[in-house]
Amino acid sequence: MRDIEILGNRSQGADFIRKTKNKKFVLSFVISYTATCEIPGITVAGANPDLLKFTPAADAEFLKYGYCKSIDAIPMTPDGKPTPALLTKVALEAASIPCFVVNAGSKVVPKVPCVELGLEPGKNIAQEPALEQELVRKAVEYGRIVGRTLGSSTDCLIIGESIPGGTTTALAVLKGLGMQALVSSSMPQNPTDLKNKTVQNALKKLQSKDPYNVVAQVGDPMIPSVAGILSTASESTNVILAGGTQMAAVLAFAKNIGFNEKNTVVGTTSYIVDDKTANLVDAVRQIYDIPVLVAKLRLGQSKISGLRSYAEGFVKEGAGAGGASIACMIKTGLDTEKLLLLTEKEYQRITSQ
Amino acid sequence: MRDIEILGNRSQGADFIRKTKNKKFVLSFVISYTATCEIPGITVAGANPDLLKFTPAADAEFLKYGYCKSIDAIPMTPDGKPTPALLTKVALEAASIPCFVVNAGSKVVPKVPCVELGLEPGKNIAQEPALEQELVRKAVEYGRIVGRTLGSSTDCLIIGESIPGGTTTALAVLKGLGMQALVSSSMPQNPTDLKNKTVQNALKKLQSKDPYNVVAQVGDPMIPSVAGILSTASESTNVILAGGTQMAAVLAFAKNIGFNEKNTVVGTTSYIVDDKTANLVDAVRQIYDIPVLVAKLRLGQSKISGLRSYAEGFVKEGAGAGGASIACMIKTGLDTEKLLLLTEKEYQRITSQ
Repeated sequence: MRDIEILGNRSQGADFIRKTKNKKFVLSFVISYTATCEIPGITVAGANPDLLKFTPAADAEFLKYGYCKSIDAIPMTPDGKPTPALLTKVALEAASIPCFVVNAGSKVVPKVPCVELGLEPGKNIAQEPALEQELVRKAVEYGRIVGRTLGSSTDCLIIGESIPGGTTTALAVLKGLGMQALVSSSMPQNPTDLKNKTVQNALKKLQSKDPYNVVAQVGDPMIPSVAGILSTASESTNVILAGGTQMAAVLAFAKNIGFNEKNTVVGTTSYIVDDKTANLVDAVRQIYDIPVLVAKLRLGQSKISGLRSYAEGFVKEGAGAGGASIACMIKTGLDTEKLLLLTEKEYQRITSQ
Repeated sequence: MRDIEILGNRSQGADFIRKTKNKKFVLSFVISYTATCEIPGITVAGANPDLLKFTPAADAEFLKYGYCKSIDAIPMTPDGKPTPALLTKVALEAASIPCFVVNAGSKVVPKVPCVELGLEPGKNIAQEPALEQELVRKAVEYGRIVGRTLGSSTDCLIIGESIPGGTTTALAVLKGLGMQALVSSSMPQNPTDLKNKTVQNALKKLQSKDPYNVVAQVGDPMIPSVAGILSTASESTNVILAGGTQMAAVLAFAKNIGFNEKNTVVGTTSYIVDDKTANLVDAVRQIYDIPVLVAKLRLGQSKISGLRSYAEGFVKEGAGAGGASIACMIKTGLDTEKLLLLTEKEYQRITSQ
C-alpha cells in the first residue's frame, strides 16, 4: 500500500498486510505511569508537569468519549500541539475498530471501563527501583490472560500505549538488556544528555542482567504488561506493536517470555523513523528480524500548525497513533490524504468546543 | 437442534440459531454482590455464609485458570454440589469461546484481569437502599461502553452473571416495575416466603416507580450493568442473556434504556424452566416477545450425585451455564450427551486435586 512503508523484514511485512487486509482489528490501549517523567525537562507530554499524571487517563477518555472527563480539555500544549490520541481516534473511527483500555499502573484511573491489571505506577528510576519484581511477574501473567482473550476474538490485535516519560525507561531497559539503542523523544531538541545521564545512573545500581530484574529496577509497568499481551495474542492472531522505541523495549523483554514473531510487526509513524537521534529499525533488528511498518502520515502538509509540528519533530508518535493509522489503511484502503482531512476536522471539532 | 428447546417467540428463536451457527461467540461474565444474600437461608450459593462473598470472584478465577486463587477450592457444597461455573467452563472450552470478566461491584476483587466498572457492592435491601441512584446511572453508562466494545468484536455476545442472592433482588425489581413474577432459587425447597417477605418489606419503602429509582432502592449492581451491556451490544450483534429470572429483571429494566429485541434471546437450563415455583417464560413474555432458548442438559443421567442434584432442584443455573451450553452447541454442533461426558471429566479433575 502506497502510504505504508515496510522496513526490516520486508517480505514478512508485505505478507502481514496481505493476510490482514479487510479483516477485523481491535486496539488494546495500555495506560501506565512512571514517576521518571517528573524529572524536569524529560518529556513534553502534558502541558504542565502537574498534569502529566492525567495524560494517560485523558487519552483513554478521549478515545472512548471524544472528550475528557478527568481534565477539562483534550491534552494539548499551550500552543496547540495535540495528543497523538487525536490521530488514533480518527483512525479507529474511520475503520470502526473497537478499543479496550487496559490499566497497567496509571496514576489516575480513567473515568471509563478499563481492563484492570491491578498494578502500581512505576517509580522514578533516577531515585529508586521502578517496581517490585513480584509486580513484573504479575504484569506478565495478567498481560498473558488479556492477550489470550483479546487475541482469540480478532484477526489482528493492535497494542498501543500511553506512559509519559516512557522513552527514558525504554532506553534503560534496552541498555540493561545489552542492546545498543538511541531513543526518540517528544521534543525536537531531544534531551539526550538528560536521558542518558538518568539511564546511566539507574543502570549503575543493576545487580543482575536477569530480564525480570532489569525491568523491575529500571523499567516501567507498561513494558511487562504489553510483553505479556503480545506473548499469548501472537500465538492465536496477528499483532501490531504500535509505538516507537518503547515497543523495541517490549520486544527485548518479550524475547525471554516467548511470543510468535511470525505474527508480529511493529507499526509506527514516519516521524519516528525520520528521527535521527533514534534508530528504531536498528534496535528492532538487533532483537528479531521482524517488519517495521511505517505510516507515512502527511501532517506536514496540514493547514493547522499544531498538526504540522509532528513533522517538525514534536510528539511524533504515541497512543498507538502509527499502528492505528496502519490498521485503518489495511482494513479500509483509505490513504493518509483522507486521514489528514479527517484529522483536521477532528482537530477543529475539539478546539472549537 | 435436538438439545435446544425454543420457548417464547419460536420463529425468532429458530432464526437466532440459524444466524449464529458456527459463528464467533464471546462471554462477558459479570460478577457482582448484594448483601441481601447475607439474610440467613436465602441462598445455597457458597457452602458457608462467610464464603458467599468469595463466590463470584472464585467463579471468575475458575473460568480463567481452572482453579481458584481467592479461596482454596472450587465453590462446592460440602456434599459435592458444584458451582454452575463448572458447566460454563466446560462449554467455553469445548467451543473455544473467550471470556471477559466484568467486575460490577463484586465484594471481592478476583485475582484475574477484569473489566472494571468502578461500582460498589449492593446493600441488603431488607435494611437499606441497594445503591445510590448515581451508581445505577454509572453502571448503565459503563455497561453501554463495554457492550459497544465487546459487541463490535463478535458475532454473538453471551452475558452471564454471578451474584449470590441475586434472585431476591431480581424479584424485587420485577415487582417494583409492575410485573407478575415468581422467582427461581438455588434450593429445591425454594424459600419463597422468606424471599417474598424480604421483597415486600423493601418495596414498601419505594417512593417512585421510576425504573432507576426501583433499581437503586431494591435492585443490585448487576442489573443495570447487564442492561447497559445489552443495550449497545444488541445494536451491533446477537446477544444471549444467559440466566434465569435475573435476566427477566434485566429485560424489564432495559426496556427503559432501549435495546434491539430482534437480536436478543434469553438462554437458560431446563432446570429453570422445569421449576414450578418460577415462570421465566411468562415473565419474559410480559416484557418482550423474545425467545427463551433452553439447554436440555442431561445432568440427571450422571453417575455423579453432585451433578444429578441439578436435576433434583439444586443450583439449577448460574454463571451463564445455560447460555454458554447453548452457545457451545450452536457453535460446534456438540450435543448434551457429549457435554455431560466433558462435565463429568472436569468434575473428576477438580475433585481429585
